[in-house]
Amino acid sequence: MGRASKGRATTSAAPVIILVRPQLGENIGMAARAMLNCGLSSLRLVKPRDGWPNPKAQRAASGADVVLDKARVFDSVADAVGDLERVVATSARNRELSQRILTARRAATEMRGWIGQGDRTGILFGPERTGLENDDMVHADTVLSIPLNPQFSSLNVAQAVLLVAYEWAAAGEGTPAERMSDHSTRPATKDELVNLFAHLERALDESGFLRNKAMRPAMVNNLRALLQRSAMTEQEVRSFHGVIKYLAKHKHGEE
Amino acid sequence: MGRASKGRATTSAAPVIILVRPQLGENIGMAARAMLNCGLSSLRLVKPRDGWPNPKAQRAASGADVVLDKARVFDSVADAVGDLERVVATSARNRELSQRILTARRAATEMRGWIGQGDRTGILFGPERTGLENDDMVHADTVLSIPLNPQFSSLNVAQAVLLVAYEWAAAGEGTPAERMSDHSTRPATKDELVNLFAHLERALDESGFLRNKAMRPAMVNNLRALLQRSAMTEQEVRSFHGVIKYLAKHKHGEE
Repeated sequence: MGRASKGRATTSAAPVIILVRPQLGENIGMAARAMLNCGLSSLRLVKPRDGWPNPKAQRAASGADVVLDKARVFDSVADAVGDLERVVATSARNRELSQRILTARRAATEMRGWIGQGDRTGILFGPERTGLENDDMVHADTVLSIPLNPQFSSLNVAQAVLLVAYEWAAAGEGTPAERMSDHSTRPATKDELVNLFAHLERALDESGFLRNKAMRPAMVNNLRALLQRSAMTEQEVRSFHGVIKYLAKHKHGEE
Repeated sequence: MGRASKGRATTSAAPVIILVRPQLGENIGMAARAMLNCGLSSLRLVKPRDGWPNPKAQRAASGADVVLDKARVFDSVADAVGDLERVVATSARNRELSQRILTARRAATEMRGWIGQGDRTGILFGPERTGLENDDMVHADTVLSIPLNPQFSSLNVAQAVLLVAYEWAAAGEGTPAERMSDHSTRPATKDELVNLFAHLERALDESGFLRNKAMRPAMVNNLRALLQRSAMTEQEVRSFHGVIKYLAKHKHGEE
């Protein structure tokens, strides 16, 4: 309520990506593609080296044109962040400036919090070769640094955008960490599994495979553990009944 | 011990990245660059379309040549995964196959567990346009799917390698989620802050800013809260003393 009274016209539900003095059109396009993959679509450019629009960016965007079409161009970082309440600067280097440095993951969580309470938030990315300058960094209240191999930290700007946007998306992600790919069937019940075990063991008894009485209990249990572990679907249990039946038939035919 | 007795010559401490029928050399090079950024260096290629070595891959690797130089080429997925105990297949599509699907994050945790117990582990990535075929997928015991924007899921293979390798690295990452960038100084003690407050309030009293006796306590507390929140360093406290001193002096000069 208090927030609304400040007269915010639009509250963006995701951070704005701000590319500062980007050099290669390809990287702008790839950054747009990375953004849209992660559900981000608001892009700002500060002094793009080769002007704007840039056909090379369009080509590299691979269908993420909507992001490029809406991109806004600014003359300075100050202008580009002027309407935002929170600004995060990405940096690979350690600076002499005293700033809070967050991992990409922690930054994503903090940004979710800020944006959740209505703070418009932007993330600054520097030019390809040099990264952000200190004069750019001081427009940010927080620094984001992606933890990488200390012996080889060499992301291009589009890769950096991808990782930061990915962490943003992951922080709001509802996908279960584990699921099954085939929804046309369901996990087998334990009754169905016990029936399968019985069928298999009957067939193996008849075939002579389980003829060693002393070994039988351990062999049976090992097979049961294997089949339990494989987390069969109801469909697979039915297939497996068929496998046993046909193998046993074939075997009898051979005798 | 039981593991060692199986006669494993080398136990890799990180997963092998396996690019299946990759088409563009640029993507192979960018994948190598992404890998090395995340501490991975073992690359296998199954039937790269344009043969191997590929100068375009070298050019795109931006210094990650060590990964390309050691890359091994195979004729089939079966050959490429033959010496591995665990294989994860990356897939954007839902399949009719019944396989466990993990997010990239969960897969990273599981792979850490497998590799920690000595299981050599590989991750399959499919060709650019089509992704892995079902005949490739069945070489894997688990599927990895990166949760992305359902309206626009269009990562190229090098971007997919980057995200999966990043999650691998992040799962073993020891970087504190939050730290300060400047190590040449330390956080101010509360004594130092109280001294600063006293200096500021004395100067503000003298200047007349705090002349309203009724308002004074709230104004002082608001200023103290602001300065506490900014988590000043010892160096910044000293600078701020200077700021107050010089502002107060200038002020007196004007009067």
